[in-house]
Amino acid sequence: MAALPTNLVIIGTGRVAEALIRFLSTRKGLNICVIGRNSARLKEIQLKYNVVISENLNDSAVEWAIVAISDDALKDVISKVKAKWISLTAGTADWRLYGENCSILYPLQSFSANADIQLENIPFIIDGDTSSISNLEKWTDLLSLKAQQFDLEKREKLHVVAVFLNNFVHHIMAKGIDLAKNYEINPEIFEALISETFNRFDMENPYSQQTGPAERKDEVTLEKHRKYLLDGNLSLYNMLSMSIKAIKDAEL
Amino acid sequence: MAALPTNLVIIGTGRVAEALIRFLSTRKGLNICVIGRNSARLKEIQLKYNVVISENLNDSAVEWAIVAISDDALKDVISKVKAKWISLTAGTADWRLYGENCSILYPLQSFSANADIQLENIPFIIDGDTSSISNLEKWTDLLSLKAQQFDLEKREKLHVVAVFLNNFVHHIMAKGIDLAKNYEINPEIFEALISETFNRFDMENPYSQQTGPAERKDEVTLEKHRKYLLDGNLSLYNMLSMSIKAIKDAEL
Repeated sequence: MAALPTNLVIIGTGRVAEALIRFLSTRKGLNICVIGRNSARLKEIQLKYNVVISENLNDSAVEWAIVAISDDALKDVISKVKAKWISLTAGTADWRLYGENCSILYPLQSFSANADIQLENIPFIIDGDTSSISNLEKWTDLLSLKAQQFDLEKREKLHVVAVFLNNFVHHIMAKGIDLAKNYEINPEIFEALISETFNRFDMENPYSQQTGPAERKDEVTLEKHRKYLLDGNLSLYNMLSMSIKAIKDAEL
Repeated sequence: MAALPTNLVIIGTGRVAEALIRFLSTRKGLNICVIGRNSARLKEIQLKYNVVISENLNDSAVEWAIVAISDDALKDVISKVKAKWISLTAGTADWRLYGENCSILYPLQSFSANADIQLENIPFIIDGDTSSISNLEKWTDLLSLKAQQFDLEKREKLHVVAVFLNNFVHHIMAKGIDLAKNYEINPEIFEALISETFNRFDMENPYSQQTGPAERKDEVTLEKHRKYLLDGNLSLYNMLSMSIKAIKDAEL
């Protein structure tokens, strides 16, 4: 019967690394070593969690290392990792470039500095050669994490969708709140509207609940709005209104 | 001591009208008549709520009428309403065009067909001449609704922000889910990401939690994503990425 490796190394001290450390450090019988270059962050992590810390990649000579560092640092670091199995948290990385013992363990979530995200609720995407996938399936199962396999192309596509649903939505909301402040409107007034925007979104029929002047092709209101918008905000307004109208046209 | 009018007319049978009817029809001592042109909808409403119905605008000869109809029908209908005080739910309407007894009672929310929105939690924007505002302040207070006064320009600006936070955010989410379906990815996988996008949005510092390749100016990933996007989706991707980069530049 397969077991979880007793000794696990986590390489990195960023948001994804910390989410993994928070989750794994409460697990009985699991010895975790966190390896990073930032001494101050390492000491912070040592104070918060039940882990040992190291600045030396030689300490990665264990069965399983999870590498949670920025994409551009990957190539340089992975060649120095001495673990038997190496998993990368980078969603769009090509594990084939880094050798057969490399695999992907990508949590589909956007991690902020302070949010206490429950990893049990997040989909983990795994990829790698047959034996890596077999290991990752066993280990995520033992850790009560939900894993499913996606190849490189599907992971890249997943990433594009995530950019729309997280980065772009965040940006549009930020633009809205920024405009409110410029207009001297207290942003708190929009709290119920923001909640409703999310609560009623229909994953099955995503366009079905679209409302607003662009959806109604109400040119009078669209023109009224434009007089309060400048430059980049006006371009965004026009492009998004056009995009909403195009969906409406396609439905007719 | 001022009291709520005993007889109230609601003109319209759409989503906003129904939300008002649902809320007001449970109020003791308040007789509600719903006036509309759509007999089928009127009968539906009569079956669901404790109200009388009518197709005749002459039945609006009461103290207070709330007109909840589409903007383009306003002009034609209002001239026929016989109530002493007339309130319009249209956010960007100019009450001055419709006479001194006309005022604005605009719920800042997007109403869908099935959602059971709690009006007590929604900001109501009021506007009108001094005596209308005085009435609306008393009546909303008696009804436990939260009201604040905004003049026409401020209501128009409020509406622009609402378009960003509701219509545009909805559209970007719909685009994301549509792409997922085209890529043969089950949209359910994005549920935790969508929740987190909203949960961690910071109204105080709206751009502070922005993440993603555009925020990092990671041109390699941006280029990788573009190969999966066509036409309108590619234009949206480029414009939103540019807009995110422009905010980043302004912060430096």
